Amino acid sequence: MNLKNYIRDIQGFPKKEIVFKDITPLLLDPQATQKCLEELVNAVKDLQITTVIGVESRGFFFGTLLAQQLNVGFVPVRKPKKLPYETISATYALEYGTDSLEIHIDAIKKGDRVLIHDDVLATGGTAAAVCELVERLGGIVVQCNFLMELSFLNGRDKIKNYDTFAVLTY
Amino acid sequence: MNLKNYIRDIQGFPKKEIVFKDITPLLLDPQATQKCLEELVNAVKDLQITTVIGVESRGFFFGTLLAQQLNVGFVPVRKPKKLPYETISATYALEYGTDSLEIHIDAIKKGDRVLIHDDVLATGGTAAAVCELVERLGGIVVQCNFLMELSFLNGRDKIKNYDTFAVLTY
Repeated sequence: MNLKNYIRDIQGFPKKEIVFKDITPLLLDPQATQKCLEELVNAVKDLQITTVIGVESRGFFFGTLLAQQLNVGFVPVRKPKKLPYETISATYALEYGTDSLEIHIDAIKKGDRVLIHDDVLATGGTAAAVCELVERLGGIVVQCNFLMELSFLNGRDKIKNYDTFAVLTY
Repeated sequence: MNLKNYIRDIQGFPKKEIVFKDITPLLLDPQATQKCLEELVNAVKDLQITTVIGVESRGFFFGTLLAQQLNVGFVPVRKPKKLPYETISATYALEYGTDSLEIHIDAIKKGDRVLIHDDVLATGGTAAAVCELVERLGGIVVQCNFLMELSFLNGRDKIKNYDTFAVLTY
């Protein structure tokens, strides 16, 4: 099974010059989803993960599946003002301006061994911000993993101190 | 295990007069999450579901888990302009004004037996809009299910033609 057959290129989304990688065909196929999940799990199963973070929103899909498969807690990291309890936030650069991500202050405990999951590793700004949040709460970032990596954007440079894994590379 | 112990009341979120039900403590506990998932699965396992819809964003957590458990496809229903491919949309009333939800036009095929999942049944406006989307694509809404139902908001009135299940009732 070639998982790339389940990723659809969308020209001009969300901006004219971008070719967006649409994962909804993958999610619609339970065998492809399972295969993808197995590859993500294989990359972390011996790493004593205690918590899985999924990054809003597309990181929630495989983030919850990973947490269940590893039998550990799941933590959503979200855009500003979405989490209801007390949070800390980290800011990261966009092409123009900045954006922020938040995490509940009780989501990670000191010494927790954390897997950060998102669907795409692009410029790495989001992943680096989430690593910062985990460490400020006393957690250890054990791996950042992704369904796919857009290697031409060099996102690994921003998270080079962390173990990084992607199922698919473009 | 009393699952209500894993739901945290947040006074004044997102607005002053609202007591928000925070499910992040539930997600952080793998046993509580598993118990909740089992109750959701038990309510649909004999209903020949072919597709699970999760409603943005908190419906994605158990939506993906349900799809995996039932070994069927997962479809995200999202806020406007989030889905990259061709969509149809349905509008629903808010306290002030309206909002919309979108689904990919190829997400549901004629005759698909669809489970709609969201975290909370409140006024029922969101769920009714998703039922409309499914039916416009030719699908059959087999059940709407939820982690919790805020029964004092009478959401079931808006989806009274559909089988409805909630793990927890307030």
